[in-house]
Amino acid sequence: MKPLRRAETTFSDDTALANITYNDKYVVVYDFSKVDDDVAIKEFTALLKDLQSVGLNTEVRPGYDQSLLVFIQAPRELLGNTVYKSRVKDWLYGITKHHPGGNASSSVSAAFEAEDVLSMHHLVNWRKDLGGAGVTPGFDRWENVTAIFPLHNHRTNHQLLAHLSTRIFLSLEDLDQIRDLWGAKVAFYFAFIQTYFRSLAFPCVAGILAWVLLPKYSLLFAVVIGIWCTVFLEYWKIKELDLALRWNVRGVGALKTNRPQFRYEKEIIDSAGRLRQHFPRWKRILRQSMVIPFVLVSTLVLGILITFVFIIETFISEAYEGSYKFYLEYFPTVLLAIFLPYATNILETTAATMTEYENHRTDDSHEMSLTQKIFILNSVTNYLPIFLTAFLYVPFGGQLIDLLEDFIDRTLGGKRWSDISFKTDPERLRNEVIALTLTGQVSSAVEELVFPWLKMQAKQWWRDRQAAQAHRRGVSGYQTSADDPSEAHFLRRTRKQALRPIYNVQDDIAEMVIQFGYLALFSPVWPLIPIGFFINNWFELRSDFLKICIEYQRPAPSRSDGIGPWVASLESLTWLGSISSAAIVHLFGSHKYIGHYMGLSTWASLPITILISEHIFMGFRAAVRFALAKIGSEQTRKESAESYARRRKYLDELEANADKPSRLDVTERERRKSVRINAADLFWTRQAEEGTSERTGISIIKLAKGAQAEAKADGQDNKKSKDL
Amino acid sequence: MKPLRRAETTFSDDTALANITYNDKYVVVYDFSKVDDDVAIKEFTALLKDLQSVGLNTEVRPGYDQSLLVFIQAPRELLGNTVYKSRVKDWLYGITKHHPGGNASSSVSAAFEAEDVLSMHHLVNWRKDLGGAGVTPGFDRWENVTAIFPLHNHRTNHQLLAHLSTRIFLSLEDLDQIRDLWGAKVAFYFAFIQTYFRSLAFPCVAGILAWVLLPKYSLLFAVVIGIWCTVFLEYWKIKELDLALRWNVRGVGALKTNRPQFRYEKEIIDSAGRLRQHFPRWKRILRQSMVIPFVLVSTLVLGILITFVFIIETFISEAYEGSYKFYLEYFPTVLLAIFLPYATNILETTAATMTEYENHRTDDSHEMSLTQKIFILNSVTNYLPIFLTAFLYVPFGGQLIDLLEDFIDRTLGGKRWSDISFKTDPERLRNEVIALTLTGQVSSAVEELVFPWLKMQAKQWWRDRQAAQAHRRGVSGYQTSADDPSEAHFLRRTRKQALRPIYNVQDDIAEMVIQFGYLALFSPVWPLIPIGFFINNWFELRSDFLKICIEYQRPAPSRSDGIGPWVASLESLTWLGSISSAAIVHLFGSHKYIGHYMGLSTWASLPITILISEHIFMGFRAAVRFALAKIGSEQTRKESAESYARRRKYLDELEANADKPSRLDVTERERRKSVRINAADLFWTRQAEEGTSERTGISIIKLAKGAQAEAKADGQDNKKSKDL
Repeated sequence: MKPLRRAETTFSDDTALANITYNDKYVVVYDFSKVDDDVAIKEFTALLKDLQSVGLNTEVRPGYDQSLLVFIQAPRELLGNTVYKSRVKDWLYGITKHHPGGNASSSVSAAFEAEDVLSMHHLVNWRKDLGGAGVTPGFDRWENVTAIFPLHNHRTNHQLLAHLSTRIFLSLEDLDQIRDLWGAKVAFYFAFIQTYFRSLAFPCVAGILAWVLLPKYSLLFAVVIGIWCTVFLEYWKIKELDLALRWNVRGVGALKTNRPQFRYEKEIIDSAGRLRQHFPRWKRILRQSMVIPFVLVSTLVLGILITFVFIIETFISEAYEGSYKFYLEYFPTVLLAIFLPYATNILETTAATMTEYENHRTDDSHEMSLTQKIFILNSVTNYLPIFLTAFLYVPFGGQLIDLLEDFIDRTLGGKRWSDISFKTDPERLRNEVIALTLTGQVSSAVEELVFPWLKMQAKQWWRDRQAAQAHRRGVSGYQTSADDPSEAHFLRRTRKQALRPIYNVQDDIAEMVIQFGYLALFSPVWPLIPIGFFINNWFELRSDFLKICIEYQRPAPSRSDGIGPWVASLESLTWLGSISSAAIVHLFGSHKYIGHYMGLSTWASLPITILISEHIFMGFRAAVRFALAKIGSEQTRKESAESYARRRKYLDELEANADKPSRLDVTERERRKSVRINAADLFWTRQAEEGTSERTGISIIKLAKGAQAEAKADGQDNKKSKDL
Repeated sequence: MKPLRRAETTFSDDTALANITYNDKYVVVYDFSKVDDDVAIKEFTALLKDLQSVGLNTEVRPGYDQSLLVFIQAPRELLGNTVYKSRVKDWLYGITKHHPGGNASSSVSAAFEAEDVLSMHHLVNWRKDLGGAGVTPGFDRWENVTAIFPLHNHRTNHQLLAHLSTRIFLSLEDLDQIRDLWGAKVAFYFAFIQTYFRSLAFPCVAGILAWVLLPKYSLLFAVVIGIWCTVFLEYWKIKELDLALRWNVRGVGALKTNRPQFRYEKEIIDSAGRLRQHFPRWKRILRQSMVIPFVLVSTLVLGILITFVFIIETFISEAYEGSYKFYLEYFPTVLLAIFLPYATNILETTAATMTEYENHRTDDSHEMSLTQKIFILNSVTNYLPIFLTAFLYVPFGGQLIDLLEDFIDRTLGGKRWSDISFKTDPERLRNEVIALTLTGQVSSAVEELVFPWLKMQAKQWWRDRQAAQAHRRGVSGYQTSADDPSEAHFLRRTRKQALRPIYNVQDDIAEMVIQFGYLALFSPVWPLIPIGFFINNWFELRSDFLKICIEYQRPAPSRSDGIGPWVASLESLTWLGSISSAAIVHLFGSHKYIGHYMGLSTWASLPITILISEHIFMGFRAAVRFALAKIGSEQTRKESAESYARRRKYLDELEANADKPSRLDVTERERRKSVRINAADLFWTRQAEEGTSERTGISIIKLAKGAQAEAKADGQDNKKSKDL
C-alpha cells in the first residue's frame, strides 16, 4: 500500500490533527431535530448501512444542536479503484485520449487532491447502481441530511491565498493549483476573472487617454471598447478550450448522471438496450417558454419601481433647497443600488422554482437554464435604470415632469409647484453610471464578504451560547464539552464548516458578466469606468478565494469544460453594446451623424446610426472569428500533433506486422493471361507481358510524330507546288 | 480470389465489353502534341513506370490526335488492400467507429463501387510516399497528362436515371445509390436539391394563397417565406449531419492530403516529429483580404453596366413608339439575363487566379475559398439589378431621367426631348424579377445542357473529320480505323469521355443557392416565384444527373461531409432576406408602418422597419435553433446509443475480468486499528470495530432527544412554577 501524502508541518493550535489528509475524507451532516428519535435512529442506521455497504469507513461525532457529523474515510484501495474507474470512463467517453491501462481492480493514485475528492463525492453521492451510497442531501429519503461536503484543506488554502496575494497576474500554474484544490469548475471562474482582469489593462489605458484627449461621449472611445469586447471574448473562447484540454475536461458534460430530482413520465428501452427515463422534450420546451412572460413581468415591475425612485429624486433635486442637498441628491440612486440586490434575490428565487418545474435531466442542464434566467434578471435590475436615464429621463424628463405636475395639481388641487422648473441634465447619466458601478462594487463586496461573515459569527455565537446554556443546565451529554481534547479543535472546525452554505460559482461569474456588461453597454458615458473595475477585480479574485475558504463549505470539485452558457451571455452583451453605445454617442455626443446630412432630426436618424453600428460590429466580429480560427489554439494543435503521432505509430506497427503487398507476381500474371480469358477481360490481357504497354505507346508516339512530319512536309510540298 | 461482380446483361452494340467492371479501372490521358517525340517517349515511359511501380496493370491505346489512352487496372489484392487501408485510416481519424479488423496485408471487397473507385483514384493520384503513383494532371512533371478519370458505368447510369425519372421525391435509398456511383460529395448535392425541392412545396402553396387572397407586396407572405427559409436551413443542417453519419463521412476533411500546387516556404518538424510544409498563416490571411477590393471593384463595374442597360431600356420604353414596343421593352432585361452569365464567367476566372495565389494547403480549403468568392460574384450579378430597380430606379427614376435629359441637352445642345415624360412604374420591379428568374432558369438550362452538348458534338465531329482526312491521305497508322473491332466501340466511347471536361459540383450547388436567394430576398415581389422554382428543380435534378452522365468525365468519387461553406452562404442570404423583404414591403406595400405613426416619411422610417424586421428574424432563428437542437438528429441519437452500447460492453467486460473490490476485509480493519496509529490517524480508528459508529450515533440521538424532552419538561415546570 502506498503511503498517504501528509502535510509536513504541524500547526501549534491543532497538534493532533494537523497531519490529516483531505483527499480521502468526506462529511455527512445528519439533522434529527425535526423527527422523533425512532425515526432518527432508523434513518441514521440506514445512512450508516448505505455508506458502509460501499466500503467506506465511518466515525460519528455530535454536531451543533440536534445533529450528527458522520465522518467518512475511504480505504486507499477503494478510492484508488474509484479514481481508476473514473479515468476509464473519461477514456470511454473520449474526454481523455489515453487508456489508463490495468483492469477493473486496478487502484491508482490521484494526480491531484481534487481528483480524489471528486471520487469521494461520487462514492457518497452517486446512485447505488453507479457504485455510490446514494446520499443526496435534502432529497427524498435523505431529507434530514443537511449537507455532504469535503473538509477544507486549511494549510493549502492558506498557502495558496498567501501566494496569490503577492502576485499581480496569475500564471497557468497558479490556476492549476486552484484546479488541484477545488476542481475544474471553480478553477474556470478564476481563470475567467484572471483573463478578464489582465485584458482590462487595455481599456484602462484607453480610458485615461480618452478622458484627457477626447470630448465627452466620444465615438472613438466607444468604437475602441467595442473592438476590445469582441477580441477579448474570442480570445477567452480559445483560452477556455486550451484550459479544458490542459485539464482533461473537454466534453466532460457527456458523462453527467441524472439529477435525483428529475421526474420522468415513463421508462423506455432505447435501441442500445438501455433503460431510459423519458420526459417529453416538447413538454420541457413548453415549460421553458414560461420564461418569456416571467421576464416581461419582472421588467415591468422593476421598471415601475425604478421610475418611482427617479420621481423621488427629481423632487429632492428640484423642490428641496435645504442643507445636504448635494448628498441627498444622490440618496435615491444609492438607495437603488442597495435596494436592487434584494429585488434580484426575490426574482432569483422565483427563477429557481421555475427551473425546478422545467424538470431537467442533468444538473448541468438545470444549472444552465437557471444561470440564463439569473443573467436576464441581473441584466434588467442592473442596466434598466441606466437605460431609463439615458433614453427616457434625460431626453423626455421635462415633459414627464410637466405631466406629473399636472397630475398632482389635479389630485391635490390648487397648490402650484411653480418653483419646480425641470431642466434636462446630461450629467445625470454620467452620475447614474458612476453611482451604480461604484456603489455596486462596494455593496457587492459588503454583501459577499462582510454580511455573511457577520451572519455566520452571529449564528455560531448563538449556537455556542445555546450549548453553553444547555451545559449549564446539565442536560447535555453530547455537546462540545464532551469532545475528546485531542479532537476538540478539529471537531469545532468541522462543526463550523457544517453550518456554512454551499458555494455556487455561478453567482461569482454572474457578477463579472454584469460588470463586463457595464463596460460593453455604457462605455462612452464615463471612460474611467475600466480603472475602477481593474482595481476592483484584483481584490475580487483574492477576496473570492478567501470567501470560499472562510465562508463556504469546501465545494465538491465538479468538473466542467468552461464557464458554459455565460459565454453566450457575454456575446449578447457585446452585441447589445454595439446598439447601446451607438445610441448613447448619437444622443449625447457632439458628433455629426449620417442622419443630419439627410435633414433628419436626432431621433429620426437614431435607427440609421444603430443599423450601421450593429452591422459594422457583426462584420468585425466575423472577421475576428475568421482570423482567430485560422491562428487557432496552441493546445488544440498540440493535441492534434499527439493524436497524429499515435496514429502514425499504429500504422507503422500495422506495416511492420504484415508482409508488403508485392507487385503482381508471375502466377498472377499467368492467371491474367490464361484463366480469366472472356469477352470482358480480353482487353486487359493484351499487354500483360512486361514491356508491351511501353513498346505499344512508344510506337504510337513515333507513328504520330512521323505522320505529323509527313503531313507538314506534304503541306509544304502543296504550298510549294501552289507557289510555283 | 473472389469473383468480380459483373453486369448480367449484354448490350447489343457493345458485345465485347458489356461485362466490364468499372470499380477497378482508371484512364490516364497523355497528350504529346506539344512536345518532341524524344521528350514524349521519356515522359510516357516514366508515366508507365510510376504506374506499374505501384502494382497497376496497364493497357495503352491511341487517343484522338496526338494522345495516348493509358488504361489502368488494379489487381484485386492491391485494390482490396488499398480499400482496407483507407478504412483503417478512417477509423484512426475517428470517421468510422469500428476497427475493420485484419492486418496490413488484408484485402476487403468494397461496400459499393465508389469506394473502390476512390481507392483507384488514390493509387493513381496520391504522392508516392502515401502509396500512389503521383500522377497529377497538368501539374509539374505531368504537364502533358490532360486527365485522369474513371470510366462511366453506362449501365448503372442508365438504370438510375430511368428510375429517378419515374419518381417525384427521392428516397434515402436513391441517394445511397448516387453515393455508391459517384461518391459522397456529388451525392450531397443531390441530397440538397432533393431536400430543397421537397421543402419548396410549402412556399408554392403559400404563394398561390397569397396571390389569390393577399394584396401585392404582402407583409404576411414575406414573413411566411422568412420563416420557411429559416426552418428549411436548420432542417437541412440536421439532414446533412444525418447523411454524413449514414455515409460514414463525418469529419472526413481531417484526412485530406496536401494539394500538389501548394507552395511552402520552409519545412519544419513539429512536436509529433512529423515533417510539415509551412506557409505562414498571416500571409494567407493577408492574401485572402485582397478579396475585399476585388468584390468592391466587381460590384462597381457590374453596377455601371447594369445601369447602362437600364438607360437603354428607359429610352426604348419612353422615346420609342414604333411597332413591337411591348417586346422591345423587355429586350434590355433579356439582354441582361443573357449577358450576365458571361460577366460572371470572367470574374470567376479572376477569382480562381486569386484563390490560386492564396496558396491553400488542401484541396478542400482551396475549393472553400473559391466557392465563397464565386458565391459573392454570383450574388452581385444576380441580385444587383433587382436591388437597383427596387431601391434606385423605381423610387428615384424620375429624378435620374431628368438629370440625364439635362445632360443630353447640354451636350447635344438645342434638341429637346420634351416627349419623354418618365413615370415611376412599380410594375417594373415585378417584371424585372420575373424576367430574371424565369429567363435565368431557361438560359442556365441551355447553357448547362444544350451548349456543352453542341460544343462537344462539334469538337468530336471535327476530330473525326480530321482523322478521316488523315486516313484518306494514308498517313495515319494509329488512328481509330486501326482499332481491334472487338474493342472499337469501347475505345470510341473512352475517347469521347477523354475529351469531356471535369465535373465541378460547386457550380450546380451555386445555382441552387442563387435560386434560394431570389426567394429569400425578393419573395414579396411576386408570390408565384416558388412554383417556377419547384417545377424547374424537378427537371434540374434529373438533367444534372444526365449532364454528368453524358457531358462530363465520371467524377472521382471524393468524399465530404456536406455542402460545406454553402450553408453559411444560405444563412447570409436568409439574413439579408430579412432586411431586403422588409424594405420591399415597406416601400411598395400598402401597409402602415411604425414610422408613419411617428410622423416620419416613408424613407425616414425605413431604417426602423429594417431594424425591427432584422431583430425579429434573429430572435426567431435563435428560437428555431434552440428547439431543433433539443429535438436533435435521429442519426446522432442512434450513433450515441451505439457508442453507449460499446462502452457498456467494455465496462461489463472490465467488471467480469476482475474480482470485485470487496468491502473492507478483516486484515485491512486490523491494520486500520494497529499499524497506522499516529496522531493524524487516531481519529479514524476509534470506531473501526463494526457497529461502533452506529451505536455511538444512536446514543447521541437518544441523549439529545432526552435532553430536549428534559428541557421541555423543565420549561413547562418553570412555566408552571411561574403560573403558580
